[in-house]
Order: sequence, then structure tokens, then C-alpha cells
Amino acid sequence: MTLPVETFFLNPDHQGTLQSQIQQMIAQGILSGRFQPGEKLPSTRKLATHLSVSRITVTLAYTELLSNDYLTSRGRSGYYVSRNAPAPPSFTPTPNGPDAVDWNKAIGQRFSGGQTPSKPQDWAKYRYPFIYGQADPTLFDHANWRLCALQALGQRDFTPLTTDYYDQDDPQLIEFIARHTLPRRGISARPEQILITLGAQNALWLTAQVLLTQRRKAAFEDPCYHALRDILSQSRCHLAPVRVDQAGLPPEAIPPDTDVVFTTPSHQCPTNGTMPMDRRRALLERCREMDTLIVEDDYEFEMSFLKPPSPALKSLDTDGRVIYVGSFSKSLFPGLRLGYLVGSEPFIREARALRASVLRHPPGHIQRTAAYFLSLGHYDALIRRMGTALHERREIMQAAIEENGLQIAGQGAYGGSSYWMRAPEHVNTRHLAQSLQAKGVLIEPGESFFGGDGKPQHFYRLAYSSIPAGRIAEGIKLVASEIKSS
Amino acid sequence: MTLPVETFFLNPDHQGTLQSQIQQMIAQGILSGRFQPGEKLPSTRKLATHLSVSRITVTLAYTELLSNDYLTSRGRSGYYVSRNAPAPPSFTPTPNGPDAVDWNKAIGQRFSGGQTPSKPQDWAKYRYPFIYGQADPTLFDHANWRLCALQALGQRDFTPLTTDYYDQDDPQLIEFIARHTLPRRGISARPEQILITLGAQNALWLTAQVLLTQRRKAAFEDPCYHALRDILSQSRCHLAPVRVDQAGLPPEAIPPDTDVVFTTPSHQCPTNGTMPMDRRRALLERCREMDTLIVEDDYEFEMSFLKPPSPALKSLDTDGRVIYVGSFSKSLFPGLRLGYLVGSEPFIREARALRASVLRHPPGHIQRTAAYFLSLGHYDALIRRMGTALHERREIMQAAIEENGLQIAGQGAYGGSSYWMRAPEHVNTRHLAQSLQAKGVLIEPGESFFGGDGKPQHFYRLAYSSIPAGRIAEGIKLVASEIKSS
Repeated sequence: MTLPVETFFLNPDHQGTLQSQIQQMIAQGILSGRFQPGEKLPSTRKLATHLSVSRITVTLAYTELLSNDYLTSRGRSGYYVSRNAPAPPSFTPTPNGPDAVDWNKAIGQRFSGGQTPSKPQDWAKYRYPFIYGQADPTLFDHANWRLCALQALGQRDFTPLTTDYYDQDDPQLIEFIARHTLPRRGISARPEQILITLGAQNALWLTAQVLLTQRRKAAFEDPCYHALRDILSQSRCHLAPVRVDQAGLPPEAIPPDTDVVFTTPSHQCPTNGTMPMDRRRALLERCREMDTLIVEDDYEFEMSFLKPPSPALKSLDTDGRVIYVGSFSKSLFPGLRLGYLVGSEPFIREARALRASVLRHPPGHIQRTAAYFLSLGHYDALIRRMGTALHERREIMQAAIEENGLQIAGQGAYGGSSYWMRAPEHVNTRHLAQSLQAKGVLIEPGESFFGGDGKPQHFYRLAYSSIPAGRIAEGIKLVASEIKSS
Repeated sequence: MTLPVETFFLNPDHQGTLQSQIQQMIAQGILSGRFQPGEKLPSTRKLATHLSVSRITVTLAYTELLSNDYLTSRGRSGYYVSRNAPAPPSFTPTPNGPDAVDWNKAIGQRFSGGQTPSKPQDWAKYRYPFIYGQADPTLFDHANWRLCALQALGQRDFTPLTTDYYDQDDPQLIEFIARHTLPRRGISARPEQILITLGAQNALWLTAQVLLTQRRKAAFEDPCYHALRDILSQSRCHLAPVRVDQAGLPPEAIPPDTDVVFTTPSHQCPTNGTMPMDRRRALLERCREMDTLIVEDDYEFEMSFLKPPSPALKSLDTDGRVIYVGSFSKSLFPGLRLGYLVGSEPFIREARALRASVLRHPPGHIQRTAAYFLSLGHYDALIRRMGTALHERREIMQAAIEENGLQIAGQGAYGGSSYWMRAPEHVNTRHLAQSLQAKGVLIEPGESFFGGDGKPQHFYRLAYSSIPAGRIAEGIKLVASEIKSS
């Protein structure tokens, strides 16, 4: 019997080419058992008319399915579901009843309920997205990334693509970071002092597991990156939040019995404060006296378009005291999930063993693609393009902020991609963000960056990394008027 | 001044096209400060002759570097290092002195020294690689994978490629697993009961963290996947190894106070034993009585080319007691690092929160590529092709094993990709493996799969997932003669 053409429908919100949509529709019809072996498919002409696509598209889809043995063709008589096509589900699934398991008892450790706020996935649909840390399609060098990815998908790179590296990394990526990326921060490291991680998040998490226990004390900046606070709380160590000032973390405020201090000298997160050189030296000196380790999160150092960045803390460290966290999430894109750790061998050895146990290694293909993108010079070109664009946006934003009388609470000396803002005391920026979202404006409330009780409610972050220059002024005006009316 | 053409050298072991090698050489010369802004490059003709490549190749490389602003061109007078080219290292790196840090004191938790053995990365260079769990270039559908990856790199998929999903997964991949993969194992699950992981390793690790504490007891198969033993030991829970028989894990041997039992019913790792249906039911029954959770690692179920696989334990589970671990590492390739967890919502919620804290989410591009590869039907076609090839290899191997009088200790009822072998008592298979490696034969010693003291030394694993059919007989003969002579 011929499958009625009426039972064929394209999924309207499906991604991909028309041909792939048709292939997919038929393959899934067979996999789900709707189309049985031996059944005849509509003629290419019929199906093409029904779906109102070109006949050649249908023919190409059928041919592809032939080669995958989903369909067979009987010459002029048409296409049939192949006898060798994959079998439909052979078992009737168990209905989902209520669990007999008491999960409150069964769960040994809880990880949910952290402070990391959920952010709108559909931010690109908003007209004024002052959102932080997402890739801007108008800035990213998508074409060259695609070329590098394609190269990394070639026969030559079959091994880096498919192999189980166990606890190892892509040697080409490691070599580039060691020879070209780190020297630009004044850091010299041997391959065995570098570990590739799944983004800075993974690097910070690994570091906390290796260095902290329930008996140790971690000092960290307040306010800080909320995910870091979640990581430290989960480690159950003693927490010592240290309030930052305009110049970042004040060394003298770190408790003397601190084992590890987490800091963001290039751009304090979220206030954007840049730590001056003398304070960097003072911080190293104090940590040397206290025999405290330093974890330096150097995120966004690439976004230094106002003046060249200061040397990393790690470059001033002669003790092996500093563990350096680098990331490609801001400079390339966060969905890449690539970052790296630089530290002394005994530390990297433990972090590597833990990473191997947790996930083995970051996928080979993304490591090799990044290696190509970096080594072909696309990365530095991209950074320069981004710098120029962000510089322009920043100036427009600065002007708009002044014109509308908004208060800047913190900004980076070297650039960065956001302003840390202060609203009047009585304004709760969570409510502000909600009412602005309804007007197409996305801002980030500052509360979740603070820890403990009595968190300030009136701070917020305005990023210019994903909003077109042309919309900044308008957007800022909306923020200002919303604040006035609240 | 013109840069002397003699200072230009191609890196002989560099991957990639000639053009990309030239681009890379020049970009890196600039990044490392060897080539200064304003310096003139050799003419395309000169450089082409010097490197003995075609002139057009050099011209294309120069043009690419022009567009990235590494070079400028002054019409007919040639190419120069651009004034806007990225600056060379601005700081002199600190020399690596001996650390002032006492790492024995500084490291809070150790993770190194696990039992997972290191395996030769260059296995493909061996003539007789009876190695397990690496992708076979002759079987994998590299062409269609590349096409799917390319599609996932397109403009349409810019968001899934680049976005920060925070704790979420690619909805398309989740949907396919829920609607097509799981039903084929008799499992029905809603999206919120599924979590994408970085391979089965990551799935097992997340599960252990959520379910186990120092006060809980985990039962696991002995012998078992060595990485699982490392994961469980690191969790510091009470360990209850249970010796398996030909039919896998004997339910009655599980200690009554067990909180969680880890099992591999489809193909016991490493013995390949397949758990019969009645034992699966008995296992569920016993765990229900003891109120014990079951973690089912269903790896390799796709490799059932002898007869269709039995339903997964999870498909017989009406209590929500079974947590299911799936993986694409064996069926696609291990370097992909993609697997998934299926379990009740309260469990998945905690696993998701932990994953977010550890690494946020698996890279978007590999999730979307897999979604396309699966939904276009390439995956099922690949499984069928692999099944046919492995079936043939298995029969050749079986014959060779009998002919050479080797002892099979365990084999899968449904297929699989390896044999679990027993050498005579006096043979230490670690030494056997070493001497065979020198002869171009890779086998896997069995010792590391066992726990505790008095590990049997005379077991080994022979996989046929990466060795060409034509070499199996010869390889087996070498194994046999090596055993005789030891």
C-alpha cells in the first residue's frame, strides 16, 4: 500500500535545509514505526506538490535515504521502505507512575538552590539587550571559525576529532597557549603546567576541589561572580568574603588565616575595577607572608581597548603561588566551553586527574578548531575588531549615561564590556529589571553578586557586548525614565 | 628592510593545508615579535620558490593576512607587516624558579594515583591493535558527520553554537533522545528526566556525587570499568565489590545495606556477560525489597548484531529506582564526549545543578551536530554498518581463537566489540602485553579491572572494534605463541 501523501508534514520550526527536513521526517516515520517495511512512498512529484517544494529536493532526500538503506527503489515503480530499515521500538515503554523511591532520603548531596540566576535564553529577541557574556553575531568572525572547524573535521584530523585522549589535551592547542597566548600576559609556562578546561567555570571548580576542604578558608571578592560563590559554598570550606573598592580587592582586608584567595584583577567581576600595579605587588607580598595561594581569574583581559592591560599577577609571581584561569568564552563565545588553568606541576597533576575522573577531556574537535583559529591569526584579528566596536559602544553609552544622569558605580580602566551601575537607594533593581524587560530592555540586577544578608538591592550591570551601537542611547533613556518613575 | 626569505620555514609536522601553514608561520612570526611592523615581506614569487610551493598559494596566504590586518600592501611595491598588527609580548616572562609553595601541604584533596591505566595514544600505528573503545576510521561515517557538523555551523544555528545555555541542554538533542533513542530501549522519559553529559564517564561521576556520601554503601561489579572504581573510591563511600558470573551481577550477592548498585546488564564490563531477563527481574525485585537504587550503564547496547538486545532494566522499572546511563562514545566516537542520564526528576534536578557548577553544559556545537546526525538517520545506518563489520570480525576471531587454543572467559550474547580472555594461571598479562606490544600487537591486561588485593593476573581483553578483519587471524596467532613461550 502507498503511504498517503497527506500524512507527510514538515515541522515548521525545524532547523536545516528543506532536503534535510524531508529526510528527517521520513527517517523518523520509519524509526517510530509509523512507516512499515515494504510500504510505498508517495512519488517525488506528488510529495513535492504536497509540500510545495521543488521535485529535485524530494529526489535528493529519497536518494540520501536510499544510500542509508532506509528506502529501496524498484526502478520505475518507485520508492519503498527498506526491509533492512532500522526496526521500530521493540518494547512498549513503561508508563511513568509515581516513584516508589523517597528522593529526599535517596539524594545524598544537594547542589540545587545556588545563587546563579537564570537568564533569558531568548535575549536576542529583545530590542535593548544590555546583557552580559553572550556572543554578538555582528562581531564574531563566524566565517573563519567555520573554516577552521571544517579543517578540524578533515581526514588529517580524524584522530584529534575522534580519539579518547583519556586525561590528555590537544597538544597543538596547549602549544599555542604556551608559546603565544601566555607570553602576551607575561606568563611563561611549560605544557605540563597547563590544563585545558570546559570554560573558566570548570577551571575554578577544579581548583576549588583540589585546594579546599572543610577545614580550609577561602577569601573571595564581595561582590563576585555568583557561580564562584556557589562553587565555594558547595566545597563546604570556610568562606571569607572581602568587600572590594574601586581598585578591586584590598590586600590588607584578607583574613590572615586564609588558605586560598580568589581574585579578578583585570576587571573585577562585577564592578569592573582594575587593580593597579602597586596593589598587585602588595597582594602578592601579603599572600607570601601569609603563605596563601592566589587564584587569578583573568577573564576579559583581551577586552583592553583603552590601554594595554597590566601584566597578570601570575607574571609577577616567582613563588608558584598564583594559579591562573584563562577563558575563551568572552573573546570567542561561551557555548564553546573552553578555558585553561596555568599553575605549578603538582597542582596541575591533581587537577588533571580530577578532570579525567569527572569528564576525561574537553571534546577533541573544539580543541583543534580553537587551535587553528588561534594559530591562523583569526583570534587576534577578532579581538582587535571587537575592541574597536566595544570602544565605540562604550563612548556612546558613557555619553548617554551622563545625559540621562545615571550613576556609574564602577568601570574598567582598560575597557571591558560592561558598566557597574548604582540606582537610587530606594530602587530594587530586580523589580526594575522586570518592568524594563516588558519594555524590551534587558539589564542585570546586581543583588545576586553579593553574599550574606542585607545585600544591596540598588546595583545593576549594563553590558554593551551584545547591543548594537545604534540602540544604546534609546535603551539608556528607557532605563533612566523607568528609574525615575520607580 | 625586507625580511630575509631564509628565515621562513614550514613546520614539517604541521597539520593543515600549505596555505594555512604559510599564514600560520607569518602570523606567529608577528605575534612572537620576530617580524616588526613596517618590515617588508619577501615577494610571493621569492617565498614560493624558497618554500617550493605554488605562487598562488603564497598569494592566497598573503591576501588572508591582509584581510586580518596582519599585513598591508603598497600596490606593486609588495607586502609589509601592518602597523595595526597585534603587538608582540609586552612583558618579559618570569623565569620558572623552584616553588616557594609546599604543595604537599597546599593540596587539600588528591585525585591522582587512580587505577585507570594509561593506553598508547599511537595505537593506530600498531599492526594488530586489539584495542578497545577507539573509533575505527574504516567504519565511522566521517563524511556525513562532517556534513552535519557543517550544518550546525551555519547561520541558522548561530545561537545553539555560541550561546551560554547555563544549566540547559540543546532541546533538539533532548527531544530526539526522548522520542527515538529511549523508546528503542523500552524507556519513556520526559525532557526534564534527561540530562546530557560529557560521556558516560561524566554521567557516572555526577550520579556518584548526588547519591553517595561517606556514610553510604555502593555495590559494584568485580571486575568492573576501572574508571568507575576510581569515581567510587574518590566519593569516599563504603565499597562493596560483588564478583560477577557468566550472567553478570548475581542479585543475591548484593549486601542488604547497599544504597546504590552500579551494573552493566547489556554487556558486563569487562567480561561481556549478558544478564538474562529473569535475573534482571530478580535484581529489580531484590533492590525493591532493600530499597536500593540501581545505576544501569547501558553502554554498547547498540552493538547487538547477534540478536536484538533485551529491554533495559530501566524499561522494567516502575519505581523510578533505576538511573540509566547512555553514551555515544562507542557508537559514534569517544572524542565526542557525549552521553546522557535518564532518571526521576528530583535526581536529574540535582545532577543538572552539579553539572552547571562543574562545567555549565556540553558545548552547543557537538550537541547540535549529534542531533542532526541522529535525526537524519545517519546514526542508525552507521550502527547497522558497524554491526555487520563487527559480526564478521567476531566470527574470524572466534575461529582464530579456537584454532590457536586460546581460552575465552566471557563473551556477549548479543555481540559487543571484545572478548574477555583467560591465559594460563602462570601468565602475567601485563608482561604479556608488553612483549606483544614490541611485536606490534596491542592487548589489554585484565588486572586493572579488579579491585582489592590478590587481583587475578592472567585475564586480558581482546577487542575487535579497531582491527581490520584481515589481520585478526595473524594477530591471534602471535598472542597464542607469546602465551606458549611464557
